[in-house]
Amino acid sequence: MSDHIYKIIELVGSSKSGIEAAIENALARASKTIHHIDWFEVAETRGQVVDGKVGHYQVVLRVGFRLED
Amino acid sequence: MSDHIYKIIELVGSSKSGIEAAIENALARASKTIHHIDWFEVAETRGQVVDGKVGHYQVVLRVGFRLED
Amino acid sequence: MSDHIYKIIELVGSSKSGIEAAIENALARASKTIHHIDWFEVAETRGQVVDGKVGHYQVVLRVGFRLED
Amino acid sequence: MSDHIYKIIELVGSSKSGIEAAIENALARASKTIHHIDWFEVAETRGQVVDGKVGHYQVVLRVGFRLED
Amino acid sequence: MSDHIYKIIELVGSSKSGIEAAIENALARASKTIHHIDWFEVAETRGQVVDGKVGHYQVVLRVGFRLED
Amino acid sequence: MSDHIYKIIELVGSSKSGIEAAIENALARASKTIHHIDWFEVAETRGQVVDGKVGHYQVVLRVGFRLED
Amino acid sequence: MSDHIYKIIELVGSSKSGIEAAIENALARASKTIHHIDWFEVAETRGQVVDGKVGHYQVVLRVGFRLED
Amino acid sequence: MSDHIYKIIELVGSSKSGIEAAIENALARASKTIHHIDWFEVAETRGQVVDGKVGHYQVVLRVGFRLED
Amino acid sequence: MSDHIYKIIELVGSSKSGIEAAIENALARASKTIHHIDWFEVAETRGQVVDGKVGHYQVVLRVGFRLED
Amino acid sequence: MSDHIYKIIELVGSSKSGIEAAIENALARASKTIHHIDWFEVAETRGQVVDGKVGHYQVVLRVGFRLED
Amino acid sequence: MSDHIYKIIELVGSSKSGIEAAIENALARASKTIHHIDWFEVAETRGQVVDGKVGHYQVVLRVGFRLED
Amino acid sequence: MSDHIYKIIELVGSSKSGIEAAIENALARASKTIHHIDWFEVAETRGQVVDGKVGHYQVVLRVGFRLED
Repeated sequence: MSDHIYKIIELVGSSKSGIEAAIENALARASKTIHHIDWFEVAETRGQVVDGKVGHYQVVLRVGFRLED
Repeated sequence: MSDHIYKIIELVGSSKSGIEAAIENALARASKTIHHIDWFEVAETRGQVVDGKVGHYQVVLRVGFRLED
Repeated sequence: MSDHIYKIIELVGSSKSGIEAAIENALARASKTIHHIDWFEVAETRGQVVDGKVGHYQVVLRVGFRLED
Repeated sequence: MSDHIYKIIELVGSSKSGIEAAIENALARASKTIHHIDWFEVAETRGQVVDGKVGHYQVVLRVGFRLED
Repeated sequence: MSDHIYKIIELVGSSKSGIEAAIENALARASKTIHHIDWFEVAETRGQVVDGKVGHYQVVLRVGFRLED
Repeated sequence: MSDHIYKIIELVGSSKSGIEAAIENALARASKTIHHIDWFEVAETRGQVVDGKVGHYQVVLRVGFRLED
Repeated sequence: MSDHIYKIIELVGSSKSGIEAAIENALARASKTIHHIDWFEVAETRGQVVDGKVGHYQVVLRVGFRLED
Repeated sequence: MSDHIYKIIELVGSSKSGIEAAIENALARASKTIHHIDWFEVAETRGQVVDGKVGHYQVVLRVGFRLED
Repeated sequence: MSDHIYKIIELVGSSKSGIEAAIENALARASKTIHHIDWFEVAETRGQVVDGKVGHYQVVLRVGFRLED
Repeated sequence: MSDHIYKIIELVGSSKSGIEAAIENALARASKTIHHIDWFEVAETRGQVVDGKVGHYQVVLRVGFRLED
Repeated sequence: MSDHIYKIIELVGSSKSGIEAAIENALARASKTIHHIDWFEVAETRGQVVDGKVGHYQVVLRVGFRLED
Repeated sequence: MSDHIYKIIELVGSSKSGIEAAIENALARASKTIHHIDWFEVAETRGQVVDGKVGHYQVVLRVGFRLED
């Protein structure tokens, strides 16, 4: 078994529903063009406020995926 | 269009239900006395534990709002 | 009233359902063997990705409990 | 019992006597105008030097207090 | 001479011209309502981009001022 | 209106003239190949020194842009 | 002489008297059950406030001790 | 398959030979008493100096292992 | 001589042999598709543990390369 | 070609004119007594405020230079 | 009045008596050879432990002083 | 026994061979002019890349030594 190499990219997912939904949205978008996504880390959680309520949650993710040899 | 100035204050919201509810509680309280709240950033997520379960989620927020000229 | 001493340990809870469930799972496991758990702080939020979706949320917690004299 | 909201402000206390005195000075000043102060965290400890001795200790504190509903 | 107490607040200044102008704008606005401003620290430098150029520089400042006794 | 996803990349702009020029140079180069650039954050400011003067300012930027659906 | 291995644990000492007393309290409690304690590092200094005065200083310590072979 | 819980402890391995040897020494000692060690992270790399040469490399590790249910 | 622009990407190299080998593996893979790689910085050093020994060293690298004009 | 050794020192440059001028002032002073200065990194940007305007910009620099063999 | 330049050096003061004494010891030693010391910042507080008590407090200080023109 | 004072300086060692060699090179150079070097801490590990391979490892060290009274 060979020594794998991974790449980490940074994405911002957003959602009106909550933090987990923002994460899932970013991963769904990323998996359209990237194969072998393995893990994510939350780097930042923030959001826009509209009329005293959360308009959109925005979650900055670091997303790791394996590079093909 | 003029150059806006914003102020950032730090609040701790708490809730028995979850992280998003703690954030919404803090924003609801802040919007009673502050206008033009624009965004928030989560600085810390923590909680009190009662009998091995989360008693209250406590979320430290940085909340940004536009100052009137 | 005496001056209490606390210990902080680091746990990683995981859950397919979400961030709060991962926190609750770690606290439930910890409270099997530790008394007087008082608070937790989220140190890191991350997860495994399977087929472009979150497989498991993994939350690194710092958990504080009072030591008996 | 309701979900409390807290505010955190940042103060710098100073004292010729030492670090604890600088902290107590800042809290004494803050409690003149703020109710329900609950906790503080030391963010920075520094000082001015005069003739090779500490002139004033300066302690940057984050001070948390409960907001009334 | 007494032991002074300072407060630190966080502001975001913005300007189309550059980083120093964004700092000066925030200080000018703050000095309308705050006396005894003594120092600032740059916490973050960022900006909005419009058509591949900086639209506004946005500088997050921590601003310290002396509290009256 | 849908939930947007953003990507953040890291660039280093350089300029002999100053910090703002280094930022503008990086954004100008990035906008040749990337659409919908929305914001930047300065991560690091540094430079090369030649004969006791700044040869080039080098500014490490995090640049955010919206991904098309 | 062999290559020693150390373990680091995290404790919170508290005291009404001051920061050094809180540190000493934590070390005294730790040394009841742990041998070979070698060093400590202060990770955080905080406290509870009662009526505008420090009720308890709370010092988060990282405490290092040598493991027996 | 159930939701696993992990614990993270902090160890300092030391070695005269180098960084990797210090890591291996800490893991070898830990695995005498801990099962299911899964991963480590290097938190700090340091060393003692004797006569201008490295006497011992000291590597602070965070070591994660799965807790049995 | 013009003002160069660089891009920084994040890679994870892995190796059974040690930290330097993990770094070299990541650079070797990157240089298959990227020209003008100039420098790297180690952001994190970690590894998988198998039977109390390091299975793979994993080194998170920030890799900088010059963009063509 | 031999393996060079560099030293990094920390300086604070100040200027009434702006951030770049404060950097240039610090480098000019350093180059009076230090040879082979190669690079600088900005560690902190701050300033004194006089009458609601910046009195002096103060830039904390880390300055690197090659040691002679 | 000219634009002053400052240098920051890092010292570790130690004392059996407490944190303030360790700071004063470091400043007293520094002022033997350095003029114009203006301020200090505490970077780290730690200590050696002997028989479950603090043997020496060790305080890492950043010490700033004005350079003569 | 008196209360020792230490100074910490920052050096960058470089080597074509690896991380430990870069550390040893910096310490060897420092010990030509400095007595009583006691410890080092790795602050940063980086390197230059030539043709997809590491040209030089560069290790930023903080080096502590005891000052004579």
